[in-house]
Amino acid sequence: MPASPADRIRTIVEAIRPLDREAMRLARERQGRLTKPPGSLGRLEALAEHIAGITGQSRPRLERRLVVVAAGDHGVAARGVSAYPSEVTGQMVANFLAGGAAINVLAAHAGARVRVVDAGVASDTEAHPDLVRLRLGAGTEDITAGPAMPRALAEQAVAEGIALLDAERAASGVDIVACGEMGIGNTTAAAAVVAALTGRPAHAVTGRGTGIDDERYELKVRAVRESLEMNRPDPADGIGVLAAVGGFEIGVLAGLYLGAAAARVPAVVDGFISGSAALIAAAIAPEVRDYLLASHRSVEAGHTTTLDHLGLEPLFDLGMRLGEGSGAALGITLCVAACRLLDEMATFEDAGVSTSPEVVSPEA
Amino acid sequence: MPASPADRIRTIVEAIRPLDREAMRLARERQGRLTKPPGSLGRLEALAEHIAGITGQSRPRLERRLVVVAAGDHGVAARGVSAYPSEVTGQMVANFLAGGAAINVLAAHAGARVRVVDAGVASDTEAHPDLVRLRLGAGTEDITAGPAMPRALAEQAVAEGIALLDAERAASGVDIVACGEMGIGNTTAAAAVVAALTGRPAHAVTGRGTGIDDERYELKVRAVRESLEMNRPDPADGIGVLAAVGGFEIGVLAGLYLGAAAARVPAVVDGFISGSAALIAAAIAPEVRDYLLASHRSVEAGHTTTLDHLGLEPLFDLGMRLGEGSGAALGITLCVAACRLLDEMATFEDAGVSTSPEVVSPEA
Repeated sequence: MPASPADRIRTIVEAIRPLDREAMRLARERQGRLTKPPGSLGRLEALAEHIAGITGQSRPRLERRLVVVAAGDHGVAARGVSAYPSEVTGQMVANFLAGGAAINVLAAHAGARVRVVDAGVASDTEAHPDLVRLRLGAGTEDITAGPAMPRALAEQAVAEGIALLDAERAASGVDIVACGEMGIGNTTAAAAVVAALTGRPAHAVTGRGTGIDDERYELKVRAVRESLEMNRPDPADGIGVLAAVGGFEIGVLAGLYLGAAAARVPAVVDGFISGSAALIAAAIAPEVRDYLLASHRSVEAGHTTTLDHLGLEPLFDLGMRLGEGSGAALGITLCVAACRLLDEMATFEDAGVSTSPEVVSPEA
Repeated sequence: MPASPADRIRTIVEAIRPLDREAMRLARERQGRLTKPPGSLGRLEALAEHIAGITGQSRPRLERRLVVVAAGDHGVAARGVSAYPSEVTGQMVANFLAGGAAINVLAAHAGARVRVVDAGVASDTEAHPDLVRLRLGAGTEDITAGPAMPRALAEQAVAEGIALLDAERAASGVDIVACGEMGIGNTTAAAAVVAALTGRPAHAVTGRGTGIDDERYELKVRAVRESLEMNRPDPADGIGVLAAVGGFEIGVLAGLYLGAAAARVPAVVDGFISGSAALIAAAIAPEVRDYLLASHRSVEAGHTTTLDHLGLEPLFDLGMRLGEGSGAALGITLCVAACRLLDEMATFEDAGVSTSPEVVSPEA
């Protein structure tokens, strides 16, 4: 008897364990013996220790790297909230599969493979070995007129994200995953999700997405506000928020975060939409937050609110606002650097370098 | 008739040309045709355009990557300004050559080769294929009691930096260079250099280096102040400042920056000492600043003053304060990412992706 999506989500949430404090302690202790002044690698030291706690390995190696780009369309795009037409979602899926998008370049740079998910693209997509064709719908419904999707589909989207991580682990192994997305209209859905889950007003969490003018921006804020008034999502019900104002790709990413947490795989959050999916995952299982790593601070309004709500501090701010997992892929390179330093540097004893009589133990 | 060091410096300074505006224009035009909303890659777009202007190539490829770690000792270390003894400089040179230091790991991560320079280490160093043994002195003199080195040696240090870049270009090619250093006591010398060249008071530009306590910190500020009172360096005379309060490794890095600028090679500045060397290079030839890329903002007091004076905005701030070129090596990975995006991404025409009717040309 196959478990229902709701059961599969419940099972995976119950499998999430606390960070491995012993692995973190061993990592921290090793940091103190490496040939550098204590603390001189700054946040790279804390990052490696965090990844030790996530993976349960005191010297984690992040060799098998995955970038997931989940794509979906949004009925609300018909309201004129984006600078681009919905057909661009499917065209960009083809571009991801042909290797021509920013995320392909940044994933290659990070030594990561790319999996593209058609979570619910309006136009048809062709079969491709790197494409997971879920096609949960031909885009969501217009959230200003009713819910984005039925609750059952929201559960299925999350369960598919969980299944995706499982399948990737089984097929090729996953030591770290970066979570990206594509979907014309999805900054509108994400703004509604973030407003619903943080209690912030629509205008405070709505940004300019791909780069819209003042007139479209007003339309967009109004659409976010109307979607919340129409659907009145309950912030305590993550699946409910996803069904009310979310998106298929947002649901898949939320499932990916939950699956990663249960499997002790660090999950790198990208920008605003990726962050909104993390908020949904955290509404379903607050303990997922320990398994998330923020990469960059997006210029999209509402991203900082999202990260604050998740208790995450981004590693860098390069003024990016592309999505696709672009910032998260760069984040992988920093995570790899941090873990390689912890693993590969010589200790003072190994290298015969004098320690300072003055410098106190990092344990102190 | 071999040219004197002063002549060699003059020749290289005269060879520095303005940025290539046409290459920058072509790079910017291409950015606007790539499959992404205009400007959505944030500072990575400006970075790639800057590198186009430096290299004169509209699609620069940064394949041959070099990290230089220049090491030198400092007479002022005897004044107790560091948490570590001077012997650590030579021990760390051995560690760099054995591959056990942070910079070895970060250079490998960036796909860069490492050249170590014994610019003036107090202890003896052994011959090694990756070591350039200049040994301009057994450390500098105590700058609180007189000049760090004679003017002729300061000129020689800078000329050796120029020659080093030439030799590396001839031997293996250099598409980008990261400039790092090692030297017990060198944050004291760098603070004196930065104070001399920016006019800021000693206490404002003196930091805690490897991590010293309050008592040593007071000693250190006093040493910086005394070195300036003793030597009274002229801020209009870069070589004079280097001779008065600098260091052999600082001089070599200053020469490296000048040589890189003349050869149209982007030079990535690391932390405080690397930045102080860039200030000296800019005092010798202000136009060198166009060829510098700041990597990170160090926690060392005075680094922000240094970057501001150079007109540089760092790419990231991870709370690092190690030196060795560690931040600059990470900076190389960002430069490579930025240039790969510019070069490898598909255009809207190539990928058959619809452009926005609304988005204005990035030329506008």
